[in-house]
Order: sequence, then structure tokens, then C-alpha cells
Amino acid sequence: MDYRRTHLCNALRKGDIGTTVTLSGWVHRRRDHGGLIFIDLRDRFGLTQLIFDPEISKKAHTEASKLRAEWVITIKGNVRARGEGLANSKLETGEIEIEVIEFEILSKAETPPFSICDDSTETSEDIRLKYRYLDIRRGNVTEKLVMRHKAMMATRTFLDSQGFLEVNTPILGRSTPEGARDYLVPSRIYPGNFYALPQSPQIYKQLLMIGGIDRYFQIAPCFRDEDLRSDRQPEFTQIDIEMSFEYPEDINTLLHDYLRYVFKTCLNYDVPDNIPTMTYHDCMEHYGTDRPDLRYGMPLVRLDEIAQESEFSVFKQELEVGGCVKALCVKGGADISRKEIDRYTEFAQKFGLRGLGWMKRQEDGLTSSIVKFFSKEQLKALEEKLGAETGDLLLFGAASEPLVNQSLDHLRRLIAKERSLVKPDTYEFLWVTDFPLFEWDEEEGRPQSTHHPFTMPHPDDLDLLKSDPLKVRSNAYDIIINGYELGGGSQRIHDFEVQKKVFEALKIDPQEATQKFGFFINALQYGTPPHLGIALGFDRLIMLLSKTENIRDVIAFPKTQKASDLLTQCPSSVNPKQLDDLEIKASPKEITWI
Amino acid sequence: MDYRRTHLCNALRKGDIGTTVTLSGWVHRRRDHGGLIFIDLRDRFGLTQLIFDPEISKKAHTEASKLRAEWVITIKGNVRARGEGLANSKLETGEIEIEVIEFEILSKAETPPFSICDDSTETSEDIRLKYRYLDIRRGNVTEKLVMRHKAMMATRTFLDSQGFLEVNTPILGRSTPEGARDYLVPSRIYPGNFYALPQSPQIYKQLLMIGGIDRYFQIAPCFRDEDLRSDRQPEFTQIDIEMSFEYPEDINTLLHDYLRYVFKTCLNYDVPDNIPTMTYHDCMEHYGTDRPDLRYGMPLVRLDEIAQESEFSVFKQELEVGGCVKALCVKGGADISRKEIDRYTEFAQKFGLRGLGWMKRQEDGLTSSIVKFFSKEQLKALEEKLGAETGDLLLFGAASEPLVNQSLDHLRRLIAKERSLVKPDTYEFLWVTDFPLFEWDEEEGRPQSTHHPFTMPHPDDLDLLKSDPLKVRSNAYDIIINGYELGGGSQRIHDFEVQKKVFEALKIDPQEATQKFGFFINALQYGTPPHLGIALGFDRLIMLLSKTENIRDVIAFPKTQKASDLLTQCPSSVNPKQLDDLEIKASPKEITWI
Repeated sequence: MDYRRTHLCNALRKGDIGTTVTLSGWVHRRRDHGGLIFIDLRDRFGLTQLIFDPEISKKAHTEASKLRAEWVITIKGNVRARGEGLANSKLETGEIEIEVIEFEILSKAETPPFSICDDSTETSEDIRLKYRYLDIRRGNVTEKLVMRHKAMMATRTFLDSQGFLEVNTPILGRSTPEGARDYLVPSRIYPGNFYALPQSPQIYKQLLMIGGIDRYFQIAPCFRDEDLRSDRQPEFTQIDIEMSFEYPEDINTLLHDYLRYVFKTCLNYDVPDNIPTMTYHDCMEHYGTDRPDLRYGMPLVRLDEIAQESEFSVFKQELEVGGCVKALCVKGGADISRKEIDRYTEFAQKFGLRGLGWMKRQEDGLTSSIVKFFSKEQLKALEEKLGAETGDLLLFGAASEPLVNQSLDHLRRLIAKERSLVKPDTYEFLWVTDFPLFEWDEEEGRPQSTHHPFTMPHPDDLDLLKSDPLKVRSNAYDIIINGYELGGGSQRIHDFEVQKKVFEALKIDPQEATQKFGFFINALQYGTPPHLGIALGFDRLIMLLSKTENIRDVIAFPKTQKASDLLTQCPSSVNPKQLDDLEIKASPKEITWI
Repeated sequence: MDYRRTHLCNALRKGDIGTTVTLSGWVHRRRDHGGLIFIDLRDRFGLTQLIFDPEISKKAHTEASKLRAEWVITIKGNVRARGEGLANSKLETGEIEIEVIEFEILSKAETPPFSICDDSTETSEDIRLKYRYLDIRRGNVTEKLVMRHKAMMATRTFLDSQGFLEVNTPILGRSTPEGARDYLVPSRIYPGNFYALPQSPQIYKQLLMIGGIDRYFQIAPCFRDEDLRSDRQPEFTQIDIEMSFEYPEDINTLLHDYLRYVFKTCLNYDVPDNIPTMTYHDCMEHYGTDRPDLRYGMPLVRLDEIAQESEFSVFKQELEVGGCVKALCVKGGADISRKEIDRYTEFAQKFGLRGLGWMKRQEDGLTSSIVKFFSKEQLKALEEKLGAETGDLLLFGAASEPLVNQSLDHLRRLIAKERSLVKPDTYEFLWVTDFPLFEWDEEEGRPQSTHHPFTMPHPDDLDLLKSDPLKVRSNAYDIIINGYELGGGSQRIHDFEVQKKVFEALKIDPQEATQKFGFFINALQYGTPPHLGIALGFDRLIMLLSKTENIRDVIAFPKTQKASDLLTQCPSSVNPKQLDDLEIKASPKEITWI
């Protein structure tokens, strides 16, 4: 039989009744009923019901009785209406079925380790990763791969329309001394020397700007050999953008248009006409994080003054050693039990807080064991600052600023999740700007670049580079969606004199600079245009678009948190000849696979 | 000054005269003439002439006298017509110039190591690679990067329109025992174990078919750690396509439509409605290669019979030991001197021929020192078989079939090139089919897969698998353009019983098969649809579209033939800590860089 299909498995409708069709696909489910055999035939597009009736073809009916789940078949048959009352409104093809005239088995299948047709069965993720091809067949992963494809197409279509060229930069690159740990690739021709897989195409895209490419982008594979958090993968994908002769506000506009286009194309979702901007300072102040989730309220409110005036020694002691006191107001949270509050306290303690203070706003005012330390006026001021109304719960943290911020940020996210404060199916976008150019590196005893040493200082702060470098803001920006950092970027330094000042502030002497970034510093001196860019986490974008929090869902063949592939069983030991060719020595430790 | 541009450097025309514009770009050339300063301002789009006139702005004129090549500036000025007779018809902006009102230097430049504005200067490729960003500025590379971008967009747009999903497969993969040498990546979490960079996504794309993805493509980075021929790179790009439930003729149609679309979109070139097909056997017979260049004639003609009947012992001896005699006819080649023919002979000897026989067709018949060994009838038959006319040259090779084929194939290409037989700006397309499934591996003493062990045998030859495996043809195909293999592919085995027979023919026992391809053989047994695909060399496609024979021209940051990057100076030694983390030992050999 010619197994080419006239239709896919979700294609046939009432209008096709009476036509003869060829379908090919997988046996999704078989039911024998009243002398007939029913098969749901499946492909990635949908299901079509087949009927094997001995009165139509005795041979086909007999053969069909041997069919088992996941066998691949091709069939020829006639489309007919389902019987009265038998239509299945859940299926797009639910009004028709196919009377099979003849069919052929294209390949048989072993019994799968988990059911494909019943995805309610819980299967461990490890087993699903080992049999990824079967997991893909179940549809949940495929849906996300389709979204990924759509988003890649939309990204490229949009950026192409804006005059950006996609340029592929090398994957066998040079190991860089800054940043995360590189994956290394031994060179055979130059033994003992190594390539590194790129953590990002940062240097190359700047070189392209120096080369006059004007507007560049790339959907780029990137690599980091770090111990993996659950939302990280050793290889990930970045939408990398760089352009010349423009300003941060232009990136802002471009990204806004881009997000509008992608969300509309992929989800039919309208990104609002205005994306708010908040400085890094304000983010930290009001949300304790530089990536606040704005789908719900509950900002952190600073209470240093009131705490200072109060009699509550716990707060006052923290203020004395330079700490701060902040609180958040859980709307309607007065119903939260003491036990629950204890659980919140334990949660906050994981992030370093010693404890959580709390007050409930009852009909007759604030109550709790610590209310007594505050005067009436102070309590009134508290209520006002926090916008507390009857039925609300106030939670207080007092400690050093970073501890308070981190704990209350996480607590805020936890409460929002547990109390379903997150508006479903909405996206809240935010630009964060004015990041500090440097952060203090305790270990090295000198400032470190917050992003990288080529980030442009804020033009108003150039004079502070020498006098007070930690006060210098940068022309860097992040785009935040629903509390996740989708991406970030910056204007880069194009004037070598500024670059030298930044190296000085970083205490990198010219020799060290040459050793670390020689070729790039060289390039900067041959006529560099003003340029700036951004990099977006593409996997993260797909997670947002397809509403999953598991990064492995949006990658066809993902790795585990130990950076292994359970399907192909890699990494693996290799032939000793391969290592000899590379002149490297290694003793393979055996890996136990599931 | 705000350096945002109102226009790019190739944008302004007569219609813009009188408007005030802002341009930014590189100083391409400066000429001081009659008290005025002329600057050609450049970006990747073109040039615009600027005039600094002290009567318009004394300050700008003074400052402009300091400008040097490759400085980056932004200018504001008025568009005006060039003076009578001063229009430059070679420039798109040649009818206008800009009277500069004010300008600013954005960054200065060192004197470049080679001229950007005069690309007639010969510069060694090594220097151009070291300063790749400057080479990109010269336009020749940029042009090819633009073509590359266009072709990527066209590829994706076309395949998307045909229902293909682009799926990214892993770059950190498993080392495979077959094929070329892998690039390895040491694992830190499992010391002594390695990932391998993919030579192609072959296994993954077949797994996607098993997963039901139906139609897949990817513009995929691939890697091979081989000693490089001049047209190879250690990392290269492949257009990888796979689809289910179709036949080789469907791939043929798809590829034809694809090539038509790409050549039209990128070059406005019409791919013909018919692409010829030739079997592997016929290609070898008539052109001595499986990738014949059909832009010119000069087929190889087999003369075994005539040679056998002749008195020429040199030919007859070769025939006796199983060799063959073939010849080609150089139209109008009778003017080729004895010295030239000697050069051809030396060339052919490099490929293993002992010598070249030759005859010239003069007015009065064939002449040469070997004519005497042939009878009149034999000479007449020779002329007829080779289509020789007055003024032609015949060249003969006699040896084992592979030697004759290889030598005459290369000789044919050389002569076509030297005698300009290649029709310029044309593309000749060819499908080659019916490749042998196996080739004999002398070293191992057993058949080896010509492509890979998952290639489907030709359905008519299944019975030969056991009895005469070297006679089995495969359902594999190549697409050839202008004598280059653009790509190839095959139908894959979807029936495990056939797969087992192929392993048997390859003398791979089940245990060895499991060890080598275990997870994949496993996957094949869970319901595999008939599937097939093709992989196209994307770099090669861009070389063809942009008419260069240097693969480094079509890659933004290419590597040398020693797989090194002269710009970033990689591979490089790394921090010992990095090797400790990976538990590998290596002694770095120092590399000398230009």
C-alpha cells in the first residue's frame, strides 16, 4: 500500500462524508464492541476513529484484531457520519468515522513503559526523559515545541522586518576569564589547548558592530557549566540583539514592539501600550528584588522611622547596626492561622531572617503580641503606610537590607501563589533601569562589573568613576515579565578613554586588561560606533508563552539537573584512542543509568 | 549631539535636496580641495559625500581637518545637488552631497593594518582574519553575510509554509563510534566522561520522527574534528530535514520547490522546471564522479572494446588486469600544445594515472604517436563514440576503474576551468540516486555502510542483503549543483526486521549493535513511522549563491585550516583550575600567533 496520507488525523469533518481517504498514524486505542473493532488513529495533529467491520472487509477485521497500542498503520477507507448520538464533541473529528477497506501494518511496537493514550497516569520525569520520543508522542511536549517553532519564526520575521541581520557566531570559541564556568573542548591540532563553548555571543556581537553590521541578531545556543538550578539547563538559547547609533530608549521601543508582535502571533495576547519603567533602586526598595512580579500588589513598605520611634527593641537593634524594617500587607489575611504564620516564619528564616513580626487588623484596630510596643499614633501611621484595612495581615521583617529584601521578596511570591493572588492568563511587563555599574567583591577587595566591563556608565555619573565608583549607575536595563527576568542588556562603551577609566575603577591594570581582553580592546580602537543591545532568554520566553515552570518542557531533548541525557546516556566514556588523539588523560568514573 | 540617523549612507537622492539630515558612519576617505574638505561617509549600506565649507561653519571645517580614515562621526547638514558635471554615476547617492552644519567625533581610530577604502590592495588572508572586523567593514564579507541571512530567512519561511517544525537538538551529545572524529567536551559532574559535539543531528531527527513530529527541520551547527581541506570548517551549518509517511520522490519534489524558492528569493534566479536524475552507476560511468558538473559537456567515454581490439599494449595490459580505458573529447582542443598536454599528464598522475594518451583530430583524421596501434575502423569508431570533430583533442586514461574515474574527473574539471567552458551565472542541478548501500572495507574485511547503518535498502534488492550485499542499492539520494554535493539523504529503515538484516550484512552482532546504538535500536521498536530526510550543506549553498569558492567568505568568524581563530587567538591554554575541575590532565603546547 502507498502510505502517503490524503489527510492528517485531525482533518476530516462532516463535509468529507462519502470520500475515500488514506490515513497513516499510530494506534492510540483499540476497542472491540458488538463484533466491530474501533481504533483511534493518532498523529500529532489529532485523532480519527476507524471502524473495522467484517461485513466491509473480513480480512481487515481479522488483521485488526491483532493491532496493539502504538503500532503504526496505514489505512484506506470511506468517511461516514457517526451514528445518531455517537458524535464526540471533544474531538475535532468527532462527527465522522472511517469505514476501513484495507490497511497495512507499517511497524509494530513493544508495550510502552507508560501509557501514551492516558496521560493522567503519573510517570516519573526520569522515565519520561529516558523515553523522550514516547513522551513527545503524548502531545504535551509537542505543543511546546510547536510554540517554540512559532516564537522562533515570529522573532526572525519581526527582526528581519526591522533590518536586523541574523549572523551565526562561533561555538568553538575562546575561554574567557570572567563569568561562569566554561565548557571546554580540547584541541587535537594544538594539544593541551582548548576551545570554550560560548556563554553568550557578547564579544562577537560587539565585534560585528565594530565591523559595521549595524543591526545584528541571533537565536544563539549558549552554554554554562554550572551546578544547575531546576530552571537552568547546561545549554540554553538566547535571542541576542545588538545595534549601532541608537540609545537605550530605542531598545526599549524595539523590545516593546517585538513583545507585542510575538505575544500577538503566538498567543493572540495584547501587550499593553505602556510598559512601566522602574529604577533598580525603586525595585529593591518596594519589592526587595530587581525582578518584581507585578501581577499582584503587596509591595514592601519601609518602616524605619516608625520602628525607630517605637519601643520594640528587636526592630531598634537591627536599625542600630544599619539594618532596616520593612513590612507587607496581606489583604484579607487576618484569617491566616498562627500555625500558618509560623510556617511563613520558617520559610523566611531559610533566607536568613531571624523571625517575622506580624499584626492583624481587626475591626477594632491592630492586634498581636508586639502591638504594645507601638503608640496609637505609630500604629495609625503603620496602617496608613501599609494601606491596612479590616481583615488584613501585616508581616514585618527586620535585619540587614539584603536579608530583609530577599526574605520578604520570596515570602511575597509564596503568599501570592498560595493565596492565588496572581491574575491568571495575564502578563505584567516591567523595564528595570539604572543598575549599579559595579558591585563590591568582598573576596577580591575591589569592585566587580555588575554586568561586564564593557557596560557604559550612566552619562551623569562619569565623574563618580574615580571618586565613588560604587555609586555609578550604568546604562543597563532588564525586561521583566511576571517576576522573571526575560532578559537584559546595556549600552556598551565605544570611547576608549571611557573604557580605560572603567578598567581603572575595576583596578585592572593595562597589562591585565590586554591579557584578559587583548584582541577586543584592540578592536575597540579602530573606530567603534556607539552601540547597545539586549539578550533575551528564549527558553524562558517559551516557558512564559506556554505557561510551564519546567524548562525541560520547552526543550526537545533536555538534560537532567546533573547535566546528563537519560535518553542517549551521555556524557559517556570514550575510546582511549580518542583521548590519545587529544593528548589528554582522564580516568572515567562509571555512571549508573536508570 | 544626538547621533541617531535620519538616513543611512545610501539613502539620499535628488528628491531629498533641501532637507536637513543627520548621518552617522565611518570616514571612508578625506580629500581637501579648493579650501573645502570632502569626506565620503560610509556605513554598510553605502557612501554619502559630505562637504565642510568654512563659509557654512568655520568650526566644523577646522575640526574636519583633523578627521582620519575610519573615525566614527555623526553630522548634521543640508542635502544639496552636486555641482554641474560633478555627479558620480557609480554611487547611488552620486547626485547629491551634504553641506555639514555641525558634527561630532564619536570615536577615533588607529591607522588600520590594511586599507578599507581601497580593496584592490592585496592583503594576506591571515591578516584579514586577524582583523576580521575591519575585513567585514570592507563590504565583500558583509555582502555574503547578507546573503546568508536572506537564505536562512527564505529556508525557514519556505519550510514553515510546508508544515515543518524547526526543533533544536542538543549540541552536548553522545560520542558515536561511527563517522568522523568527534569534538569532545569533558564532563565536570561525571569526571572522565565526555559529551561530543554533533556531526549531524541524524539520530535526534529520527527520534523526533519516532516521536511523531511528522515534519522537522533545523538549520543546525555541526562539528567535525578532521584535518581540514580548504573548503571545510571544523564547525559548519546544515539544513537538516526529515519527514514521515512519504517517499524519496516526495523529498525530490520538496527540494525542487525549496531550491526554486531560495534561488528566486535570494538571486532572482529561475531553477528549471525539470531537474535531471542520474543513477550513481551512470554518474560514475559517464563522469567518473558521483557529483558531476553539468555546466559543460566532455563526458567520459568507455573504450574497453576498441582498446581490446587494438594493438596498443599499454591499454590492453590494463584491461587484462581488470582495468578500463576511458577518454574525453576537448572541443577545439587540437590547438593545445605538447607542453600543455604534458602538464595535464602530470596533473592526472597526481591522481594515480601512469600517463595520458592523446590524439588530435586534424582535417585529415586522428594524429598522434599512438594512432598507429589502431586500425582505420577502430579510429572511426573512436571518433564516433567521442563525437570528435576537426580541431578536437582526445585524452585517454587506462588503469583500474577508480583511478581512471578519479583522474579524468579532475582533469575534466581542470580543463573546463582553464578553457572557460563553464557557462557563467548558470546553475546546473542534478539528482543522483541508487547509491550502493555498502562499500567494502579492506581494513576491517567487511562491508561498511556507505551512508549510515539506518539507510533503507532499495526495495528491489532486499533479497541480495544476504547473498550479495555489495550489489544492494540504497534508497539514498544526493542533490548536486555545479559539480558540488549540496546535500544528500535517504529513506531510513522503519522496520526492525530489515534493520536486523542490515546489521547481519554489516557483520554487526546484536550485542555490538546494542553497545553501539542501544538507545536508538530500542526506540525503533516502539512504533516507527516510515521516514526519510536530507541534509544540505548550508555554507556550500551560500558559496554557490554568492559565487565564492572560499568557505571562509560566508562565515562571519571562520577558522583557519588548522582550526584556529586568528582574531580571538583560540584554542588557548586555560587556567589549571579549569582542568582540575574536570579532572583531566594536559600539557599545553605554546601556539605562535601572527
